[in-house]
Amino acid sequence: MLSIYDRLYPEKKPIDITAFGEVLLDMISREEAPLKECINFTRYFGGSPANVLVNSQRLDNQTAFISRIGDDAFGDYLKDILKDERVNLDCLQIDSSAATPVIFVNKSKATPSWLAYRGADINIELEEEIYEKIDQSSIFFIGSFILSKNPARSTALKIIDYAVENDTLLAFDPSFRASLWPEGEKGKQIIKDIISKSDFIKPSLDDAEHLFAKDTPKNYLKKYHQCGAKIVILTLGKDGVLVSDGKNEPVHIEVFSEKVIDVTGAGDSFWSGFLSGILRSLTIKESAKLGNAVAAFKIQGVGALSSIPPLLEIMSYYNINPAERGEN
Amino acid sequence: MLSIYDRLYPEKKPIDITAFGEVLLDMISREEAPLKECINFTRYFGGSPANVLVNSQRLDNQTAFISRIGDDAFGDYLKDILKDERVNLDCLQIDSSAATPVIFVNKSKATPSWLAYRGADINIELEEEIYEKIDQSSIFFIGSFILSKNPARSTALKIIDYAVENDTLLAFDPSFRASLWPEGEKGKQIIKDIISKSDFIKPSLDDAEHLFAKDTPKNYLKKYHQCGAKIVILTLGKDGVLVSDGKNEPVHIEVFSEKVIDVTGAGDSFWSGFLSGILRSLTIKESAKLGNAVAAFKIQGVGALSSIPPLLEIMSYYNINPAERGEN
Repeated sequence: MLSIYDRLYPEKKPIDITAFGEVLLDMISREEAPLKECINFTRYFGGSPANVLVNSQRLDNQTAFISRIGDDAFGDYLKDILKDERVNLDCLQIDSSAATPVIFVNKSKATPSWLAYRGADINIELEEEIYEKIDQSSIFFIGSFILSKNPARSTALKIIDYAVENDTLLAFDPSFRASLWPEGEKGKQIIKDIISKSDFIKPSLDDAEHLFAKDTPKNYLKKYHQCGAKIVILTLGKDGVLVSDGKNEPVHIEVFSEKVIDVTGAGDSFWSGFLSGILRSLTIKESAKLGNAVAAFKIQGVGALSSIPPLLEIMSYYNINPAERGEN
Repeated sequence: MLSIYDRLYPEKKPIDITAFGEVLLDMISREEAPLKECINFTRYFGGSPANVLVNSQRLDNQTAFISRIGDDAFGDYLKDILKDERVNLDCLQIDSSAATPVIFVNKSKATPSWLAYRGADINIELEEEIYEKIDQSSIFFIGSFILSKNPARSTALKIIDYAVENDTLLAFDPSFRASLWPEGEKGKQIIKDIISKSDFIKPSLDDAEHLFAKDTPKNYLKKYHQCGAKIVILTLGKDGVLVSDGKNEPVHIEVFSEKVIDVTGAGDSFWSGFLSGILRSLTIKESAKLGNAVAAFKIQGVGALSSIPPLLEIMSYYNINPAERGEN
């Protein structure tokens, strides 16, 4: 069983992180109003796994993407960005009969509401070269949005099993929302099955409440470990994160950002910092600090892909211990 | 056989025009650029049959809409507009599992390109009350966008047959684009079948070229009549329209607008003016002039639903003959 104070020594492979899932247009309203009343929208690069990869590339990791876009103007736009950021796109599928997905979101001080137009993303197919990509990867990352609909879901489940059998570390963002799933509440069991196979999961308090009944943070941690999760990073919004291995007392790490400009994609930034730490054999605790540090830089800029300083600068600025065993 | 100089005396029924098809959000770019490079978009009320109905209501006709929207913020927005315009919405279906359709369009001096996100619209179901609505209607209007995909297409074909059997006048906008049809070029035959049943069709030169091989306007008219169309109104853009009954020489009507601000929805405006004329027993030729007149007011304002003066003012302004048999 992994401890918060352990270091992993992932085998050095050609690809650090391969992610599976959606890349899409976030259409964010300019008005702060209910979505029904929003008139003007601005287009942004989006999709959680795509954000994780771009941020990870900027932190000097090699990444690859298993995804699917439409053969259209929006797909071309997204693909160009991924290419410019040097994400490996050998497994980026182009769908000739479904469009690149788009999500409308309203700007809001409260929880924003959104409206998703799925398309090519739900058609990700299993191709032989995907297995080769997993063979070459230290970490496999997957979110929950892409699991909500078939055939992408069934492709995902096969790749997850292959990754686990081949000792690729599994990082999973277990964000279940019944409204996205044709099966509704029954989808929970699929999320729990993947949690049981995961090395790292990073749920929010909201995610935990949607998956279990409303409870305390400590009880949520217990429930995730009962599902079989190894390392659980429970995010508490402005109160930082709790990191738990299921046997030691959870470690609390505070938010590092001094000001908050835009929290869009903060969780994706956390993932890229955290996985960068794991790939460099920082302890799990120090990796989580690195996650918070990268998120802090993100939060102080606008957009899911705001600029990030070099990794070593971030570590030095936030006093993250690269060499020694982490302490409490 | 109908002549251009004939008047029809449609039986007075509770509903003047019932339309079948899509109501959707047009997301128009603010930048004049290829869609791939457009960053900002503004939302507009859209969907050709919805525009025809709103314009027809503003011209003092009673209308009803057979359509389907998602149970979402965009559907609510569109429904509120239709309700405010007093379009009868007894046959507006709400889809709990598909979203309200959205079309992205780039502003362009050349032909704009677009990207459609279909949703609830393709799920319009046959319901008993639709037959009742047709029974109460003088004219049934349908476009081509909604025919491209099932199950909406199969619903449409049944309603068209019912309307024709019940002597409801059939107005059809035959705008075939193979890229929208899963069957590709085979879709043409369905369009031609509906043309054969139509009292009025209003293709553009582009529509004609997509349906037949490239040809002259006069030959296009001949081909439409060979399909079985009764009255063909071929729109020539800035050169006005040709109205043909297949036996007399086609009548040319010039564009009435002095300045061009925005041509979005000009064709839908034509339909509402033309059908308003038919409903008031103007000759077919004078009805087409009324169509051009209403389109002229549209073109001089911005948006598909720019404001229209009262019908009698338009007729007097453009010298449209309400009482006597129209002349050449």
